[in-house]
Amino acid sequence: MPFETTIIVRFGDVDSAGIVYYPRYPHYLHVGMERFFDEVLGVDYAELTGGRKFGLPTVRLEIDFKRPFRYGDRIAMEIAIGRVGTTSVEWLYTLRGAGEEAIRATARTVTVSTDLERLEKLPVPEWLRTGLAEL
Amino acid sequence: MPFETTIIVRFGDVDSAGIVYYPRYPHYLHVGMERFFDEVLGVDYAELTGGRKFGLPTVRLEIDFKRPFRYGDRIAMEIAIGRVGTTSVEWLYTLRGAGEEAIRATARTVTVSTDLERLEKLPVPEWLRTGLAEL
Amino acid sequence: MPFETTIIVRFGDVDSAGIVYYPRYPHYLHVGMERFFDEVLGVDYAELTGGRKFGLPTVRLEIDFKRPFRYGDRIAMEIAIGRVGTTSVEWLYTLRGAGEEAIRATARTVTVSTDLERLEKLPVPEWLRTGLAEL
Amino acid sequence: MPFETTIIVRFGDVDSAGIVYYPRYPHYLHVGMERFFDEVLGVDYAELTGGRKFGLPTVRLEIDFKRPFRYGDRIAMEIAIGRVGTTSVEWLYTLRGAGEEAIRATARTVTVSTDLERLEKLPVPEWLRTGLAEL
Repeated sequence: MPFETTIIVRFGDVDSAGIVYYPRYPHYLHVGMERFFDEVLGVDYAELTGGRKFGLPTVRLEIDFKRPFRYGDRIAMEIAIGRVGTTSVEWLYTLRGAGEEAIRATARTVTVSTDLERLEKLPVPEWLRTGLAEL
Repeated sequence: MPFETTIIVRFGDVDSAGIVYYPRYPHYLHVGMERFFDEVLGVDYAELTGGRKFGLPTVRLEIDFKRPFRYGDRIAMEIAIGRVGTTSVEWLYTLRGAGEEAIRATARTVTVSTDLERLEKLPVPEWLRTGLAEL
Repeated sequence: MPFETTIIVRFGDVDSAGIVYYPRYPHYLHVGMERFFDEVLGVDYAELTGGRKFGLPTVRLEIDFKRPFRYGDRIAMEIAIGRVGTTSVEWLYTLRGAGEEAIRATARTVTVSTDLERLEKLPVPEWLRTGLAEL
Repeated sequence: MPFETTIIVRFGDVDSAGIVYYPRYPHYLHVGMERFFDEVLGVDYAELTGGRKFGLPTVRLEIDFKRPFRYGDRIAMEIAIGRVGTTSVEWLYTLRGAGEEAIRATARTVTVSTDLERLEKLPVPEWLRTGLAEL
């Protein structure tokens, strides 16, 4: 079962063509990931990165934009976990308008388990591997 | 010859890990594309999108992040044109620290020639096809 | 009774000093105002500005920053209505950390009732004046 | 003589009413201040805040918005120094369209000389007081 969360498009999220400025999408993805940590894994990403100096920087981003969002739209975002490697976690995002069948955008990120103090790769820790596997 | 432009990382462009927040990269790419229109094609993208209601929304975005940027870094961005299809234009970006050999990030976008009033695809107009071919 | 809403500080909201980048505050204020329209007045600000072409652009902004917010902080924002003039509405914001007594920031904006098509001042409409007065 | 710098309004800087989203203004002010440090004082604000852990967080912000900017506008920003106190520096900003007489916005910030490691006030250092006085 993927995790679902809602993002509301705000007044300043659009561009001069009146649709959501495409660089705003990866920010939405990051907010979704922060909520995933909080609501699915029960881990505060702020405490994780600030206190334990552990995080998941993104090394690869892909987005396919099919139909734009506009101001006021409620984005229904689904987050699923793809492949979990030795040091990497793959995240798969599906974005729809709330209550809609049609997909408006899909995204894929690859993040790397990282010691934020030294910016060095680490094996995905057990608590995270287990938490993601339960999904 | 690719087009080259410099982006300066600003005080508020970073994230809580002290490196450039990855959603800022596509904004940098868009600024690069706006300058490309202005400096290479001699076309004001603001006038194009606002006046002539023609633009190039992004339908596909890919970024590979190799080494992060930090506040104060000067990003040397190279922009090259890839495949120009019937309605699509492919943009290829290479990001280095100014004066550096090593690549810190690469990106690829596919944009679609679009009537912004109706949000409908259009064939790539001749002036644009010619301008891009001269590169 | 002022309206209360919670804003969560996100991973990319900070600056290079590790505290919330101060230009993010007015964005938080705007999100608060959008929620105020939705939750207090029962009016969708997106529909109001996009459909009815009516809005409340800001003509004056004041913020006093007393103690910074950091990533992960939950901002408890109180919004009260100040003076409602012929064409203007004054908004008063108080920002605390969730569950805290101490104020971390206060803000005041003056917005002007505006025809967004012509960008011309309008008298504050009766539905808005009444809705604000009930507060 | 005030310092002058130009800010170009970008494609994603607008809001759903088609004018610059007002929270973007303080970001423009900060970019102006960063350039002031670089071009007037000959000090890299990134090195100052990152290396020497000294900075000027904002404790008070005021903006008067008179006439909006739109996508593609070139903002001619003038920066003057107001009162320099024991620990505070006052910055005065005037924003016009490039080549225009009429003022579109004015702003005032008060910043405080700060040890960024401890977030504690410091007297304005001599090099800064002297540099600002020469203006």
